[in-house]
Amino acid sequence: MITLNFAKMDGLVPAVVQDYKTDEVLMVAFINEEAWQKTLATGKAHYYTRTRQKIWLKGETSGHFQLIKEILVDCDDDTVVFKVEQVGGAACHTGYNSCFYRRVQGDELVVIKEKAVI
Amino acid sequence: MITLNFAKMDGLVPAVVQDYKTDEVLMVAFINEEAWQKTLATGKAHYYTRTRQKIWLKGETSGHFQLIKEILVDCDDDTVVFKVEQVGGAACHTGYNSCFYRRVQGDELVVIKEKAVI
Repeated sequence: MITLNFAKMDGLVPAVVQDYKTDEVLMVAFINEEAWQKTLATGKAHYYTRTRQKIWLKGETSGHFQLIKEILVDCDDDTVVFKVEQVGGAACHTGYNSCFYRRVQGDELVVIKEKAVI
Repeated sequence: MITLNFAKMDGLVPAVVQDYKTDEVLMVAFINEEAWQKTLATGKAHYYTRTRQKIWLKGETSGHFQLIKEILVDCDDDTVVFKVEQVGGAACHTGYNSCFYRRVQGDELVVIKEKAVI
Protein backbone atom coordinates (compact mmCIF):
# COMPACT_ATOMS: atom_id res chain seq x y z
CA MET A 1 0.00 0.00 0.00
CA ILE A 2 1.54 3.28 -1.11
CA THR A 3 0.15 6.33 0.64
CA LEU A 4 0.43 9.75 -0.98
CA ASN A 5 0.03 13.03 0.87
CA PHE A 6 -3.28 14.31 -0.48
CA ALA A 7 -3.78 16.64 2.49
CA LYS A 8 -1.38 19.30 1.26
CA MET A 9 -3.56 20.36 -1.65
CA ASP A 10 -7.15 19.75 -0.61
CA GLY A 11 -7.19 16.11 -1.64
CA LEU A 12 -5.19 16.46 -4.84
CA VAL A 13 -1.70 15.58 -6.01
CA PRO A 14 -0.19 16.73 -9.33
CA ALA A 15 0.77 14.01 -11.82
CA VAL A 16 3.42 14.76 -14.43
CA VAL A 17 2.93 12.57 -17.48
CA GLN A 18 6.02 11.60 -19.46
CA ASP A 19 6.38 9.56 -22.62
CA TYR A 20 8.07 6.38 -21.36
CA LYS A 21 10.41 6.20 -24.36
CA THR A 22 11.42 9.82 -24.93
CA ASP A 23 10.85 11.32 -21.44
CA GLU A 24 9.01 14.21 -23.10
CA VAL A 25 6.48 15.79 -20.72
CA LEU A 26 3.07 15.25 -22.32
CA MET A 27 0.78 16.89 -19.78
CA VAL A 28 0.19 17.64 -16.12
CA ALA A 29 -3.05 16.68 -14.40
CA PHE A 30 -4.31 16.08 -10.88
CA ILE A 31 -5.23 12.89 -9.08
CA ASN A 32 -7.20 12.27 -5.93
CA GLU A 33 -7.11 9.11 -3.83
CA GLU A 34 -9.70 7.35 -6.01
CA ALA A 35 -7.92 8.24 -9.27
CA TRP A 36 -4.64 7.01 -7.73
CA GLN A 37 -6.15 3.67 -6.71
CA LYS A 38 -7.85 3.17 -10.08
CA THR A 39 -4.62 3.95 -11.91
CA LEU A 40 -2.73 1.39 -9.82
CA ALA A 41 -5.48 -1.22 -10.20
CA THR A 42 -6.05 -0.87 -13.97
CA GLY A 43 -2.68 0.26 -15.35
CA LYS A 44 -4.46 3.09 -17.14
CA ALA A 45 -4.06 6.73 -16.08
CA HIS A 46 -7.05 8.15 -14.21
CA TYR A 47 -7.25 11.78 -13.14
CA TYR A 48 -9.54 14.07 -11.20
CA THR A 49 -10.98 16.96 -13.15
CA ARG A 50 -11.41 20.05 -11.02
CA THR A 51 -13.69 21.65 -13.58
CA ARG A 52 -16.16 18.78 -13.71
CA GLN A 53 -15.34 17.49 -10.21
CA LYS A 54 -15.16 13.85 -11.14
CA ILE A 55 -12.79 10.98 -11.88
CA TRP A 56 -11.65 10.93 -15.47
CA LEU A 57 -10.23 7.91 -17.27
CA LYS A 58 -7.95 9.52 -19.84
CA GLY A 59 -9.04 8.16 -23.25
CA GLU A 60 -12.50 7.12 -22.09
CA THR A 61 -14.16 9.02 -24.95
CA SER A 62 -11.23 9.50 -27.37
CA GLY A 63 -9.72 6.03 -27.03
CA HIS A 64 -6.41 7.76 -26.32
CA PHE A 65 -5.63 5.86 -23.15
CA GLN A 66 -2.37 6.27 -21.28
CA LEU A 67 -0.90 2.89 -20.43
CA ILE A 68 1.21 3.07 -17.28
CA LYS A 69 4.76 1.81 -17.74
CA GLU A 70 6.32 3.22 -14.58
CA ILE A 71 5.31 5.42 -11.64
CA LEU A 72 7.73 7.57 -9.64
CA VAL A 73 6.90 9.30 -6.34
CA ASP A 74 8.69 12.39 -5.05
CA CYS A 75 10.51 12.93 -1.76
CA ASP A 76 7.46 14.48 -0.07
CA ASP A 77 4.92 11.93 -1.34
CA ASP A 78 2.92 14.81 -2.81
CA THR A 79 3.74 14.58 -6.53
CA VAL A 80 3.95 11.66 -8.95
CA VAL A 81 5.35 10.99 -12.41
CA PHE A 82 3.47 8.64 -14.71
CA LYS A 83 5.63 7.25 -17.50
CA VAL A 84 3.14 6.16 -20.14
CA GLU A 85 2.57 4.79 -23.58
CA GLN A 86 0.20 7.31 -25.15
CA VAL A 87 -2.31 5.42 -27.31
CA GLY A 88 -3.12 7.36 -30.49
CA GLY A 89 0.00 9.51 -30.21
CA ALA A 90 -1.62 12.69 -28.90
CA ALA A 91 -1.99 13.50 -25.20
CA CYS A 92 -3.33 17.01 -25.89
CA HIS A 93 -6.88 17.76 -27.02
CA THR A 94 -5.40 20.22 -29.54
CA GLY A 95 -3.90 17.33 -31.53
CA TYR A 96 -0.31 17.93 -30.48
CA ASN A 97 1.44 14.96 -28.91
CA SER A 98 2.22 17.10 -25.85
CA CYS A 99 0.32 19.97 -24.22
CA PHE A 100 3.69 21.74 -24.06
CA TYR A 101 3.98 22.60 -27.76
CA ARG A 102 4.91 26.27 -27.24
CA ARG A 103 8.22 27.74 -26.16
CA VAL A 104 8.93 31.12 -24.58
CA GLN A 105 11.02 33.20 -26.99
CA GLY A 106 11.53 36.73 -25.75
CA ASP A 107 8.05 38.15 -25.12
CA GLU A 108 6.29 35.58 -27.28
CA LEU A 109 5.11 31.98 -27.30
CA VAL A 110 6.24 30.13 -30.41
CA VAL A 111 4.82 26.79 -31.57
CA ILE A 112 7.69 24.31 -31.78
CA LYS A 113 5.91 21.07 -32.70
CA GLU A 114 3.90 19.54 -35.52
CA LYS A 115 0.44 18.17 -34.83
CA ALA A 116 0.37 14.41 -34.33
CA VAL A 117 -3.34 14.22 -35.13
CA ILE A 118 -5.02 16.47 -37.72
CA MET B 1 4.50 39.81 -22.41
CA ILE B 2 3.44 36.24 -21.71
CA THR B 3 0.39 35.93 -19.49
CA LEU B 4 -0.25 32.73 -17.57
CA ASN B 5 -3.57 31.74 -16.06
CA PHE B 6 -2.93 32.11 -12.35
CA ALA B 7 -6.65 32.39 -11.55
CA LYS B 8 -7.33 28.66 -11.85
CA MET B 9 -5.36 27.73 -8.75
CA ASP B 10 -5.57 30.70 -6.38
CA GLY B 11 -2.66 32.57 -7.93
CA LEU B 12 -0.41 29.58 -8.53
CA VAL B 13 0.75 27.57 -11.53
CA PRO B 14 2.71 24.29 -11.31
CA ALA B 15 6.20 24.26 -12.79
CA VAL B 16 7.70 20.96 -13.89
CA VAL B 17 11.50 21.12 -13.79
CA GLN B 18 13.40 19.01 -16.28
CA ASP B 19 17.13 18.54 -16.78
CA TYR B 20 17.75 20.29 -20.10
CA LYS B 21 20.12 17.58 -21.32
CA THR B 22 18.45 14.34 -20.18
CA ASP B 23 14.78 15.45 -19.88
CA GLU B 24 14.66 13.78 -16.46
CA VAL B 25 12.03 15.37 -14.21
CA LEU B 26 13.94 16.85 -11.26
CA MET B 27 11.11 18.35 -9.22
CA VAL B 28 7.73 20.06 -9.34
CA ALA B 29 7.12 23.37 -7.62
CA PHE B 30 4.68 26.26 -7.83
CA ILE B 31 5.10 29.78 -9.18
CA ASN B 32 3.01 32.88 -8.71
CA GLU B 33 3.08 35.96 -10.95
CA GLU B 34 6.06 37.47 -9.13
CA ALA B 35 8.11 34.24 -9.28
CA TRP B 36 7.27 33.96 -12.99
CA GLN B 37 8.43 37.51 -13.73
CA LYS B 38 11.61 37.10 -11.69
CA THR B 39 12.42 33.82 -13.44
CA LEU B 40 12.00 35.49 -16.84
CA ALA B 41 14.01 38.55 -15.81
CA THR B 42 16.93 36.74 -14.17
CA GLY B 43 17.17 33.40 -15.99
CA LYS B 44 17.18 31.66 -12.61
CA ALA B 45 14.22 29.60 -11.38
CA HIS B 46 12.13 31.32 -8.70
CA TYR B 47 9.22 29.59 -6.99
CA TYR B 48 6.53 30.38 -4.48
CA THR B 49 6.60 28.35 -1.30
CA ARG B 50 3.14 27.65 0.04
CA THR B 51 4.53 26.59 3.42
CA ARG B 52 6.47 29.80 4.02
CA GLN B 53 4.25 31.95 1.77
CA LYS B 54 7.06 33.75 0.01
CA ILE B 55 9.09 33.91 -3.19
CA TRP B 56 11.96 31.48 -3.20
CA LEU B 57 15.04 31.73 -5.41
CA LYS B 58 16.06 28.08 -5.77
CA GLY B 59 19.70 27.87 -4.68
CA GLU B 60 19.62 31.09 -2.66
CA THR B 61 21.03 29.34 0.41
CA SER B 62 22.52 26.15 -1.08
CA GLY B 63 24.08 27.73 -4.18
CA HIS B 64 22.25 25.08 -6.20
CA PHE B 65 20.64 27.48 -8.66
CA GLN B 66 18.60 26.31 -11.62
CA LEU B 67 19.70 28.11 -14.76
CA ILE B 68 16.85 28.39 -17.24
CA LYS B 69 17.63 26.95 -20.67
CA GLU B 70 14.12 26.76 -22.08
CA ILE B 71 10.55 27.39 -20.92
CA LEU B 72 7.49 25.62 -22.35
CA VAL B 73 3.88 26.63 -21.68
CA ASP B 74 0.92 24.26 -21.93
CA CYS B 75 -2.24 24.56 -24.04
CA ASP B 76 -4.25 26.12 -21.19
CA ASP B 77 -1.56 28.57 -20.05
CA ASP B 78 -1.81 27.09 -16.57
CA THR B 79 1.30 24.89 -16.36
CA VAL B 80 4.91 25.45 -17.37
CA VAL B 81 8.02 23.35 -17.94
CA PHE B 82 11.40 24.77 -16.96
CA LYS B 83 14.30 23.06 -18.68
CA VAL B 84 17.28 23.84 -16.50
CA GLU B 85 20.93 23.31 -15.81
CA GLN B 86 21.00 22.20 -12.17
CA VAL B 87 24.03 23.78 -10.50
CA GLY B 88 25.61 21.36 -8.01
CA GLY B 89 23.90 18.34 -9.55
CA ALA B 90 21.14 17.85 -6.96
CA ALA B 91 17.68 19.38 -7.24
CA CYS B 92 16.39 17.52 -4.20
CA HIS B 93 17.18 18.47 -0.61
CA THR B 94 17.73 14.76 0.11
CA GLY B 95 20.88 14.80 -2.05
CA TYR B 96 19.39 12.89 -4.97
CA ASN B 97 19.63 14.64 -8.33
CA SER B 98 15.85 14.33 -8.70
CA CYS B 99 13.05 14.37 -6.13
CA PHE B 100 11.63 11.39 -8.04
CA TYR B 101 14.15 8.80 -6.85
CA ARG B 102 11.58 6.15 -5.89
CA ARG B 103 9.60 3.84 -8.15
CA VAL B 104 6.33 2.04 -7.45
CA GLN B 105 6.96 -1.69 -7.47
CA GLY B 106 3.92 -3.67 -6.42
CA ASP B 107 2.88 -2.29 -3.05
CA GLU B 108 6.24 -0.72 -2.30
CA LEU B 109 8.39 2.27 -3.15
CA VAL B 110 11.90 1.28 -4.19
CA VAL B 111 14.85 3.67 -4.40
CA ILE B 112 16.20 3.57 -7.96
CA LYS B 113 18.93 6.21 -7.88
CA GLU B 114 22.25 6.93 -6.25
CA LYS B 115 22.76 10.12 -4.29
CA ALA B 116 24.48 12.87 -6.27
CA VAL B 117 25.53 14.68 -3.10
CA ILE B 118 26.53 12.90 0.10
